Amino acid sequence: MSEAASVQAVRATIGDSEFDRDTAVTLREPGVYDIDLSAGWTIINAVNGGYLLAVLGRALADALPHSDPFTISAHYLTASQPGPAVVRTDVVRTGRTLSTGQASLFQYDEAGREVERIRVLASYGDLDTLPDDVRTTAKAPAIPPMDQCFGPQDAPAPIPGSSAITDRLFLKLDPSTLGWALGAPSGKGEMRAWFGLADGRDADPLSLLLAVDALPPTAFEIGLSGWVPTVELTVHVRSRPAPGPLRVSITTRNLAGGFLEEDAEVWDSADRLVAQSRQLARVRLG
Amino acid sequence: MSEAASVQAVRATIGDSEFDRDTAVTLREPGVYDIDLSAGWTIINAVNGGYLLAVLGRALADALPHSDPFTISAHYLTASQPGPAVVRTDVVRTGRTLSTGQASLFQYDEAGREVERIRVLASYGDLDTLPDDVRTTAKAPAIPPMDQCFGPQDAPAPIPGSSAITDRLFLKLDPSTLGWALGAPSGKGEMRAWFGLADGRDADPLSLLLAVDALPPTAFEIGLSGWVPTVELTVHVRSRPAPGPLRVSITTRNLAGGFLEEDAEVWDSADRLVAQSRQLARVRLG
Repeated sequence: MSEAASVQAVRATIGDSEFDRDTAVTLREPGVYDIDLSAGWTIINAVNGGYLLAVLGRALADALPHSDPFTISAHYLTASQPGPAVVRTDVVRTGRTLSTGQASLFQYDEAGREVERIRVLASYGDLDTLPDDVRTTAKAPAIPPMDQCFGPQDAPAPIPGSSAITDRLFLKLDPSTLGWALGAPSGKGEMRAWFGLADGRDADPLSLLLAVDALPPTAFEIGLSGWVPTVELTVHVRSRPAPGPLRVSITTRNLAGGFLEEDAEVWDSADRLVAQSRQLARVRLG
Repeated sequence: MSEAASVQAVRATIGDSEFDRDTAVTLREPGVYDIDLSAGWTIINAVNGGYLLAVLGRALADALPHSDPFTISAHYLTASQPGPAVVRTDVVRTGRTLSTGQASLFQYDEAGREVERIRVLASYGDLDTLPDDVRTTAKAPAIPPMDQCFGPQDAPAPIPGSSAITDRLFLKLDPSTLGWALGAPSGKGEMRAWFGLADGRDADPLSLLLAVDALPPTAFEIGLSGWVPTVELTVHVRSRPAPGPLRVSITTRNLAGGFLEEDAEVWDSADRLVAQSRQLARVRLG
């Protein structure tokens, strides 16, 4: 069965999909949520930072009077593992248009003590109440048609040390940003792809938090291998995405002193810039 | 006396300047700092958000084992006023290379109760220990020589409702981003300027937090007037700035739904990209 056909056959919906089940948090007491972090969203052995941000974002959507993360800033403290975790939220301020909250995700050490993994500050609103004015001068990234792009499924053999998350994503990379995979990185800090969820679930504000951190690191195209752990990631969600695949473009302009920034833009099928993000990451040479 | 001569005559130094005196925090008890917010850094009646970020950044530099803000994310909650304030810090995690802290700035209501103004999450390190590798593809902004740029002092009469902060800054705006001041905004969301402190103090990592939020809003060049309050501002400090004036470039690409992003780059006299920032701001039509 072709990939496209398989997506059609099992098409999941917002609220009933792998992503929704794996980010579901259970209220333990007011402001405190339990979750079992899924092993399905790991890259090598690390839980993907965008998936983790979506988990925190979902807890805050429950804790705050507004439902959509307008701007969410995460500082990554220690590496998360699949398994039990607790999210502790704090309502900082509630307003008519915006409310601000804080959340931390903790896991447990051998002695059962909580170890903080990520801390987040976020301001939430309601995307559906925003006026329709758009004066965007940003241009959607020029990515070739999907059938001219390449995903992990197109590789002749499984990539060594490949990652559970590749089965959950529909990712088709622009061949002009794929030089690294052929041993010939372009030297430009760019990565572009079509992005969706493998089960066909459409995008929503929470899955945009995943989309901004799901492509291979731009460092690969700069000619660096090894791990590029996120120090801080801030995402602005600017519009509710239309149904259909997203286009994600990631750019690094400043690699210096062992750190780099990654700027992501996410465009929806209606040609709207639905999310912008920036992260600061460390370069750990492999 | 010419402006340049006056700067030479009273040249202040890092540690002994208006900026240093006005951001000085006094330890009240471990992790808690008092400050009197200066009326010298106001725009109309609001205390400048970059000055406030520098105050919080300075408290965290004292509270954390590292001295330089590598990435600092601020969510602005309520409008600050000149006068007494307290900064409460929390050490989130300390590591060898990076440590992470949280800080909140509070002022007092009529009943003397604390009202939170800003909450910040930040990861600090030591810029002087970073390796020298630079692979920046970003280009410094093309700003005409300083004597072809214009500052508030060049206006024929004081700007109505003008602001105390203009006396503290050395700001020379690129004439190609000054159309708004002549009633002919370019329609492009760009603002560029030479930036320094009026007393001649050189830049350091803390004053970079001021530099990213000190230019007129890009919204003016898009043709909007009125207030553009910051919701969230994240700054990455990437290098210790060399002595001499800075160049600051601010760009907005996506004005939509009543919000816009402002991306700032700060370049030093040695042509290094020393800071990058992004903020989400609300557009309040005037």
